[in-house]
Amino acid sequence: MISPDNYPSKALKDAVEAISSLPGVGSRSALRLALHLLKQPADKIHHFAAAVDNLAEGVHYCRTCMMVSDGDQCAICADSRRDHKTICVVESVRDVMSIEATGQYHGVYHVLGGIISPINGVGPSDLTIKQLVARVAADVEVILALSGDVEGETTSFYIYRQIEASGCKVTTLARGLGFGDELEYADTLTLGRSIANRQAFKP
Amino acid sequence: MISPDNYPSKALKDAVEAISSLPGVGSRSALRLALHLLKQPADKIHHFAAAVDNLAEGVHYCRTCMMVSDGDQCAICADSRRDHKTICVVESVRDVMSIEATGQYHGVYHVLGGIISPINGVGPSDLTIKQLVARVAADVEVILALSGDVEGETTSFYIYRQIEASGCKVTTLARGLGFGDELEYADTLTLGRSIANRQAFKP
Repeated sequence: MISPDNYPSKALKDAVEAISSLPGVGSRSALRLALHLLKQPADKIHHFAAAVDNLAEGVHYCRTCMMVSDGDQCAICADSRRDHKTICVVESVRDVMSIEATGQYHGVYHVLGGIISPINGVGPSDLTIKQLVARVAADVEVILALSGDVEGETTSFYIYRQIEASGCKVTTLARGLGFGDELEYADTLTLGRSIANRQAFKP
Repeated sequence: MISPDNYPSKALKDAVEAISSLPGVGSRSALRLALHLLKQPADKIHHFAAAVDNLAEGVHYCRTCMMVSDGDQCAICADSRRDHKTICVVESVRDVMSIEATGQYHGVYHVLGGIISPINGVGPSDLTIKQLVARVAADVEVILALSGDVEGETTSFYIYRQIEASGCKVTTLARGLGFGDELEYADTLTLGRSIANRQAFKP
């Protein structure tokens, strides 16, 4: 057992406390990680710290889509070959990276920076919904690519209400069984929806 | 899927690469942690980075027992109430903290800083065995509190060979805990008892 009151060094304790502030990292894992870093050469430790420190000022956000960027415009918004009339609305940076990795999408994005969640105290004003509303027009398609849970659905509905007046086309991700999924292992909600949303068979 | 070649920001990529250099942290978890930090206020990020950075110069080692310390002598070696004729030899700082947490031990320690492991390229000269040999005398008891696996036994035997000439008493932990168990994961009671029931080391 390791109790926080018997740390042999304040510097070590500070580092462990900082690392254990990360989500999913307990004080024991934090100590393991801190001692691992402690074993590294000083320059490696400095490099690690500098890389993290640079998150504060080194990361910018695209003024258009609010995506993490090196400057005030991200590479995607700056790319004239992308379809700027199709805006995919996602919760986070990770979603953009995931969709980009598919290579299937050629429009642009809008990063909300979160999802409406009263439990976590996240309201519409905490997200970049205003900036999205400012982007949409009658000739724009907005793809609501948010998670299928209650919070995702709530956020999608809220955004729809905000942008429908613009006359833009609003779509959402197709939901159903994953390719290769077997019916017997699918959860009832997914299976039920994929039946309800069945599509014409294209041989 | 997130591929390392589609990071939207160099600063973010650097941070993710640094964090994923930690043991047991994959690039995906590293991204999750980096984005978590990114959401924090700048001063929190700086505080985190500073705490880690300080590991390089802020942590000192006790000149006697090689324990992590705030100065060149640790609190345990500086404590006159401890029995300085009983030296508990452990692999790492975590083991000292684990044993201290039991409250069963009132002697001092000697931190090897690792364990003899040819596979990992760790030899006797990489550990603080020389410093231990310099500490032992005929009126000293050395408790070999290393893990019960092959590497632990090998290290114990090597150290025994180095110090037996001094005529010191050499003991080892009672194996109340299963072989292969690591000290830090043992419960306080078991660990405390194995210190109390330590037995003469039989090579």
